Amino acid sequence: MKLVTLAAGGGRPGVLVDDDTILDLGHPGRPDAALAHVPAGVREILAAGADGLSTVRGAVAQIGRLSAEGRAALVADGVLVRYAGAKLLAPLPAPGLLFSAGANYKAHLEEMKVAFPPRPAGFVKNTNTLIGHGEPILLPRAHPDMVDYEGEMTIVFGSTCHAVREEDALRYVAGYTIANDVSARDWVREFLDAKTPAVSRDGHDRNILGKQFPTFCPLGPVVVTADEIDDPHDMSIRTTINGEVLQDSNTSDMVFNVPQLIAYFSQWYCFRAGDMMTTGSPDGVGFARKPQLFLRPGDRVSVTVGGVGTLENPVVSG
Amino acid sequence: MKLVTLAAGGGRPGVLVDDDTILDLGHPGRPDAALAHVPAGVREILAAGADGLSTVRGAVAQIGRLSAEGRAALVADGVLVRYAGAKLLAPLPAPGLLFSAGANYKAHLEEMKVAFPPRPAGFVKNTNTLIGHGEPILLPRAHPDMVDYEGEMTIVFGSTCHAVREEDALRYVAGYTIANDVSARDWVREFLDAKTPAVSRDGHDRNILGKQFPTFCPLGPVVVTADEIDDPHDMSIRTTINGEVLQDSNTSDMVFNVPQLIAYFSQWYCFRAGDMMTTGSPDGVGFARKPQLFLRPGDRVSVTVGGVGTLENPVVSG
Repeated sequence: MKLVTLAAGGGRPGVLVDDDTILDLGHPGRPDAALAHVPAGVREILAAGADGLSTVRGAVAQIGRLSAEGRAALVADGVLVRYAGAKLLAPLPAPGLLFSAGANYKAHLEEMKVAFPPRPAGFVKNTNTLIGHGEPILLPRAHPDMVDYEGEMTIVFGSTCHAVREEDALRYVAGYTIANDVSARDWVREFLDAKTPAVSRDGHDRNILGKQFPTFCPLGPVVVTADEIDDPHDMSIRTTINGEVLQDSNTSDMVFNVPQLIAYFSQWYCFRAGDMMTTGSPDGVGFARKPQLFLRPGDRVSVTVGGVGTLENPVVSG
Repeated sequence: MKLVTLAAGGGRPGVLVDDDTILDLGHPGRPDAALAHVPAGVREILAAGADGLSTVRGAVAQIGRLSAEGRAALVADGVLVRYAGAKLLAPLPAPGLLFSAGANYKAHLEEMKVAFPPRPAGFVKNTNTLIGHGEPILLPRAHPDMVDYEGEMTIVFGSTCHAVREEDALRYVAGYTIANDVSARDWVREFLDAKTPAVSRDGHDRNILGKQFPTFCPLGPVVVTADEIDDPHDMSIRTTINGEVLQDSNTSDMVFNVPQLIAYFSQWYCFRAGDMMTTGSPDGVGFARKPQLFLRPGDRVSVTVGGVGTLENPVVSG
């Protein structure tokens, strides 16, 4: 299943009943609304585990049984919403923790001329950066010139996960989504060129600051439930600007795979239902291109991950 | 006013009516419950600005007008709760962003033998670390031996704050609370002793990982509203373990003051109502003592900030 958060009503859960149609699960006119209680948000649906998903599956099945007239009536009432016109929030608009694993694609490390890391690296991306599919990325007024894209396959946790072993890690994954880990690269040179530990650490901190601007984490459009992804290490990932393909890779190029990332970071972090971990970006980022390529007002940047969908956002001046 | 979050009902806002008594603002038996709508949580009260605070003030005034019998009835009904016995959550149990400014007290930099920084430093402390006053700090099973305390005066934002000037910064501060930025110090030596940029950055990252374990951010007991703090740069701060005073300083020892911290970090981060920023810890941390002193099962660690209160937590094996 593909779950979304509709902007309607301050953020209501929805589910795709086909590629073009969303069922608004929080709409009081849902045919089975009186019979089946759907949790109030995508996080709550995932946290409810098999029961939550089965309730949503039941609601989808109910739509499948409708006559054409019955379906048309739900479209008229706004219970069924056209995907193309829907206003979406990030599918998890207010998670507790959005952890961003980085430096995790072999070809990306090569293009950035960074050594292969001895262990996973990452940082917390503050959740005030989140926007949904279709919402604009704002180029920061003070730092508009080096804003870069990073398409990333992203893990969504379904239950509390702390200090788990690699062999158990995938049990905690309820689904997958797409993040664009947008970064202002103004501070990267300073970090890559640093010759002393103090300057290097300072540059590293500022590199992370450049990833924390508002709107710098487009997320979505959907969370696809884990049962629909055969192998998280064989998902195509492609980023385009205005249709031009800039990143074109596969999650098979990861340095540390999903269980390794979860086992490593969960030694310290506790992840809860609805929390997320991005898994790094493949090669082809704008900073590493010759010539460099950064986001400009009017651009449309899209990230497509096989089995999940396409996350597209316009770029505007902040 | 001093606002708390009571564990009752999954987290209800409360306010101290005197040093020993909390008014449960979410209790349906509150005398003015039918007349005055109090927002559902401390975050929502702060987000409502002057109106939110004035509603709470009205509820407190109502209690002040009660006869001894009327008050006794509210105690019997659980509308008024003894502070000493109350089960509290972190006053903001699920903020969007908990930013931890660090390396910000002159005497602490000297004891850690770290150079004065050219600009503020900090990191995101994940909010799954939060616990309330009285809740136990768990020593991590895999890393129980070097767990340290850091008492920190903490800013609570009341409205959206991004790219603000120093002279405007205090307008966004709705109140103050206390954090104990607990850290497992197992990785600090590696970071301080690093001779090369790569090892230094890696050690720095692991130092931050050591601050992310569950229960590693006791917070509270209250948020004191900004109108009650004359000068955030003249607040005493004292940390004790089992009554022994280990940190004893004043916020006047900060390297970067509150407006400087807000103006600096808000260049990147967007802070929203209920988000927080810790402001660094004074000298006297366990790692820097001779001999070193770390938290042990059975300890009680308390942080007192003048004008706010005392945050005390027991320490147990995880």
